[in-house]
Amino acid sequence: MKIKGGLLLALFAFMSMSMTAQNTKLPTLEDLIPGGATYRFAENIYNLQFWGDNYVKPDIDDMTIINPQTGKTLYTIQRSKVNEVLEEADLLPIQHFYNVSFPWKNQTDMLIRKPGKFIFYNFATHRIDKVIEMHADGTNTDYNSESGNVAFTKKNNLYVNDKRITENPEGVVSGQSVHRNEFGISKGTFWSPKGNKLAFYHMDESMVTEYPLVDMTARVAEANNIRYPMAGMTSHKVQVGVYNPATDQTIFLNTGDPTDRYFTNVAWSPDEKQIYLIEINRDQNDAKLCRYNAETGELETTILEEKHEKYVEPQNPITFLPWNDKQFIYQSQKDGYNHLYLYDTDGNFIKQLTQGDWLVQEVLGFNPKTKEVIIASTEVSPLDRTYYRVNVNTGKRTAIGKGNGVHRAQLSESGEWLIDNYSTPTDARNIDVIRVKDNKTTNLLTAADPYADFAMPSIEMGTLKAADGETDLYYRLIKPADFDSTKTYPAIVYVYGGPHAQMINNSFMNGARGWDLYMANKGYIMLSVDNRGSSNRGLEFENATFRQLGIEEGKDQAIGAEFLQSLPYVDGNRIGIHGWSFGGHMTTAQMLRYPELYKVGVAGGPVIDWSYYEVMYGERYMDTPETNPEGYEATNLNNLAGNLQGRLMIIHDDHDDTCVPQHALSFIKACVDARTYPDLFIYPGHKHNVLGRDRVHLHETITRYFEDHL
Amino acid sequence: MKIKGGLLLALFAFMSMSMTAQNTKLPTLEDLIPGGATYRFAENIYNLQFWGDNYVKPDIDDMTIINPQTGKTLYTIQRSKVNEVLEEADLLPIQHFYNVSFPWKNQTDMLIRKPGKFIFYNFATHRIDKVIEMHADGTNTDYNSESGNVAFTKKNNLYVNDKRITENPEGVVSGQSVHRNEFGISKGTFWSPKGNKLAFYHMDESMVTEYPLVDMTARVAEANNIRYPMAGMTSHKVQVGVYNPATDQTIFLNTGDPTDRYFTNVAWSPDEKQIYLIEINRDQNDAKLCRYNAETGELETTILEEKHEKYVEPQNPITFLPWNDKQFIYQSQKDGYNHLYLYDTDGNFIKQLTQGDWLVQEVLGFNPKTKEVIIASTEVSPLDRTYYRVNVNTGKRTAIGKGNGVHRAQLSESGEWLIDNYSTPTDARNIDVIRVKDNKTTNLLTAADPYADFAMPSIEMGTLKAADGETDLYYRLIKPADFDSTKTYPAIVYVYGGPHAQMINNSFMNGARGWDLYMANKGYIMLSVDNRGSSNRGLEFENATFRQLGIEEGKDQAIGAEFLQSLPYVDGNRIGIHGWSFGGHMTTAQMLRYPELYKVGVAGGPVIDWSYYEVMYGERYMDTPETNPEGYEATNLNNLAGNLQGRLMIIHDDHDDTCVPQHALSFIKACVDARTYPDLFIYPGHKHNVLGRDRVHLHETITRYFEDHL
Repeated sequence: MKIKGGLLLALFAFMSMSMTAQNTKLPTLEDLIPGGATYRFAENIYNLQFWGDNYVKPDIDDMTIINPQTGKTLYTIQRSKVNEVLEEADLLPIQHFYNVSFPWKNQTDMLIRKPGKFIFYNFATHRIDKVIEMHADGTNTDYNSESGNVAFTKKNNLYVNDKRITENPEGVVSGQSVHRNEFGISKGTFWSPKGNKLAFYHMDESMVTEYPLVDMTARVAEANNIRYPMAGMTSHKVQVGVYNPATDQTIFLNTGDPTDRYFTNVAWSPDEKQIYLIEINRDQNDAKLCRYNAETGELETTILEEKHEKYVEPQNPITFLPWNDKQFIYQSQKDGYNHLYLYDTDGNFIKQLTQGDWLVQEVLGFNPKTKEVIIASTEVSPLDRTYYRVNVNTGKRTAIGKGNGVHRAQLSESGEWLIDNYSTPTDARNIDVIRVKDNKTTNLLTAADPYADFAMPSIEMGTLKAADGETDLYYRLIKPADFDSTKTYPAIVYVYGGPHAQMINNSFMNGARGWDLYMANKGYIMLSVDNRGSSNRGLEFENATFRQLGIEEGKDQAIGAEFLQSLPYVDGNRIGIHGWSFGGHMTTAQMLRYPELYKVGVAGGPVIDWSYYEVMYGERYMDTPETNPEGYEATNLNNLAGNLQGRLMIIHDDHDDTCVPQHALSFIKACVDARTYPDLFIYPGHKHNVLGRDRVHLHETITRYFEDHL
Repeated sequence: MKIKGGLLLALFAFMSMSMTAQNTKLPTLEDLIPGGATYRFAENIYNLQFWGDNYVKPDIDDMTIINPQTGKTLYTIQRSKVNEVLEEADLLPIQHFYNVSFPWKNQTDMLIRKPGKFIFYNFATHRIDKVIEMHADGTNTDYNSESGNVAFTKKNNLYVNDKRITENPEGVVSGQSVHRNEFGISKGTFWSPKGNKLAFYHMDESMVTEYPLVDMTARVAEANNIRYPMAGMTSHKVQVGVYNPATDQTIFLNTGDPTDRYFTNVAWSPDEKQIYLIEINRDQNDAKLCRYNAETGELETTILEEKHEKYVEPQNPITFLPWNDKQFIYQSQKDGYNHLYLYDTDGNFIKQLTQGDWLVQEVLGFNPKTKEVIIASTEVSPLDRTYYRVNVNTGKRTAIGKGNGVHRAQLSESGEWLIDNYSTPTDARNIDVIRVKDNKTTNLLTAADPYADFAMPSIEMGTLKAADGETDLYYRLIKPADFDSTKTYPAIVYVYGGPHAQMINNSFMNGARGWDLYMANKGYIMLSVDNRGSSNRGLEFENATFRQLGIEEGKDQAIGAEFLQSLPYVDGNRIGIHGWSFGGHMTTAQMLRYPELYKVGVAGGPVIDWSYYEVMYGERYMDTPETNPEGYEATNLNNLAGNLQGRLMIIHDDHDDTCVPQHALSFIKACVDARTYPDLFIYPGHKHNVLGRDRVHLHETITRYFEDHL
């Protein structure tokens, strides 16, 4: 795999954070860690959104709706007025405009969600047009603004409007996300385009082993059991139901035996008559795009099939062209990068819409008039995420907005306007409203540097050759604010290293985390390297780690540590490493596989043995313990416990339902058996990381460990 | 309370361990910690026992039976011969004579226990007299050698011979120890003197909350639930059943509603017609000695009742005089020390047999001819445990054997001979056979100092005034082998501090533990102080801590720390503290209540909040959270988590069923909430301490923590 050399060179010349001489105050963990009492957020405009093609700027006391074409304010809505109206109707007041929404482009209504109520507030007439009574204790609420139907769940059952749709025994769940949120799945209900029918996931997990997470805060500690299918073990079975509120009938798609199959990427046909699924086998090397009749549940056809010797990983439902009900976009990595392919509903391949050694990160929407699809991609560089419009007929791509940085955008109803929220290495946040056709830009916000009054570290970017001798890996190096090149410093590597993530990009401060900045200022040289296996670099870069997670990645990370040792201002005998989750695995693995490189490690929520990890994510990369015994053996860090020489602290959360505490505690036992001496800390009551206020405590604990031992 | 001043002065003049100049080799943890690969046991004669009035010396290849009167060897039994006979009978051979027994004084049979079999081996004729087939998977086996009946349990049911006696649902247990082994209870079956009837405990604990201990070694971690009644919560209900193998009938003693009552100290009348219980109320301040008819189960009479404003704690069943079926010995602390009282079966108090500001530790047995009872007591000093014969008629006490040290004895059938196994501060072990009437002594073993080839620390004993300004507390101070009084050393306190235990006595090296010796040699001054609340000092000394466990004890321990600070060779800013269980509570409490005294602590398996401790032990000393809210509040260390200043490591075992892991983890949470920074370590798979080979690992972990931070 090659990276565009010229562009990289231009981007990665040394870039230093601006630091003015007069700033000597150093930020504390409370300033730098999310959850800290004085945490510095970059300024933002919360809940900025479109109402049709106008944009809405919410604030605490008022909200304005602006026509981007004319720049004119169409409406200014006072909170005092809204609350007056709400009070008259015996409804609770709103505290701000940060959670209202505008689902109806042709109505002057905004939707106010209150516990147990959906309020349609007419901001033109200042009247309440409608109140829908909701179940106050419903969760996973899914409201369809076209039909007015609402789906929600209570415990393990699904409800639509006021009806309970399922009668599930314990261990069977409807209307919630399935397959542990892999394959792009994040919810369990899918309204048809006009909201007349509801597709929903129905999961029988009664055959899945329960893992006990112990709640220490109960009067007597209690086991909170979760259904957690571990690699190679019996997994849950999923079906897709279709409920019709008009007839109160539910049918299930006739997918055949659901054992060891994944039903992913639910999509409706525009006419609501068909449902498309991407069906994947348990081995995750064969994906089929299937079309079902939404009335009968019968399979109509298999549109296409995609196989790969390692794995396929569809994460995006098909998207129909708004101007052609018979054509849709299918996303695939089959040429090595995620790109867009146009198909028709008969399964005919029409053409590849995008191509190149970069990848599409998002299909944001369409402009039906210009026949354009709006995407985000890494075309500028793997570190950037920028938007383009792509003409579906001609394939012509045109950049939208500023051509670098990491952008997150919203598209207006017509596809003609974009709200673009982005940062660059030196800009904390910008928000622009952009006319897509000509990039006419109105800046709504240029956030100040949230650390402007502090002495901040300097950040350098560069590349290293991966252990394959070919691939360029990006690194980020952080030096203390008072860096003195004649001194030597200890160094710490912050690592993640797993798929689906990238630590280094062209967002503000190149994605440097608060703790990295804090430690740099304390006198540590901080390095991160995005090894092979991480995201935004294409399929081969990612799947180089197949069936041996942590090993190839570890070779790349070792190159990072050797790079540190090569720096004249780094004390090569004092290199530490820290990471969480996959990064906890990497940290532990590096300490055990390269004891000569690392003196101290802190591994948070680590995967220790992939056989304790769940089926969907784990088997994609590792296959099963039965089919890849040598891989599981080689990557099981319990087998390497005897190699521990430096100081290694394992941190785990006792309610970690992603990477269960068995990882950490089995490793402690393995070390005791092998007579090696790790350290351990447990954060009670937290899940797969320590969030909120306690996150500052966590980072003080981590900091102290390096200060004690590095 | 006063201690005999003169005697103490004589005993506690400096006593140093012998150390010869040429020894410079220091013992390792493997040498010093039980479970270590090279652990040094003091030489012993295992399974030494009486056969009637002759004593039996087992060895690996042979065994001798000796008449102590004549010194003549009556039998020498070769293992090769025994195994020849066993083999002929298709029975498995024995590997040594260390677990044979001699229950029949009038038969030349020894009992060989094999899985599934009891073998009566005639060592005179070398024939197998009898084989009893046993249930190989039975536990709690209780064999009565008079009747030949055997009781055992399988899971939660009781069996006698081949019959299952109970049909218990889950949560109901028969034939096992109850009340969590408090009140001297250690088993659940009690054969009548001739073995014709079996009294047994029957416990319904289905109403007791279950505590989940998570087994990390299963394929998927599993919760192993234990029934653990916590202070103030619903406790189990106990009954006493009586089973008659002849009739196959079971009756239950009609004790009335068993809710919140303890049925303790089961004793049979010599004629097997009656059963005596000591019944205690939940508040543990009222004990009744009750007599039941063993045929009908009806209460015949309440012999006596004992109350105390703090608590009563009967731990010894009544013992009938072998020469008078109508008189028995009752033990009580009612005059401030545990002493013997003679009663008749009508409840008439006859006389107090022992008296003084010392206490009876054991009633070993009787000599019916001389009308003497043989006891162990602290009469020499609270640090010694020595034997006396007490004439029941005259009250005359005569010392048996060497008059100091810590002795453990066996009494022969007639009561005329004693096997006395003891150590003194300077003698690792002696074993004597003693003729009780005149102290004629034959020495069987004088063990060598197991550390003779090592440079060993020196041990000093002394007393400090307790925080009450009156009471003398014993301390033990250990100095490095190469102690240099011109240097300054850091110091570590090893503490237990709870009831039922004493850290300092006149056993070998004054009870110093291997780790204390190890740390002394590493350059730490090691101190232990037996504070008020500990054992062998009488009731007032113990119950000074009532309703506020840890607080009075802590004042005494603070005096120990101040004593260390007063020593010219101790660095008063470098004092550490370590203890386990109650000592873990003390360690944590001292770190939090006296942050100015202690720099580093290691608390193992600590009680943190007495409301997480069990009903029987906890409520005795603390009452309930409902009746003593201020006491629970004041002693709950979670409330003091914010006081942590020094370095404190909490170590807990994940299968701790005595002091459940909720203690440690709730404390970690309290510290996180309070933004203080303890350290933590978990030993997976261990119970209420780390035993076996891993015990060396544990002590290396503890050592490293002090070396890192003190």
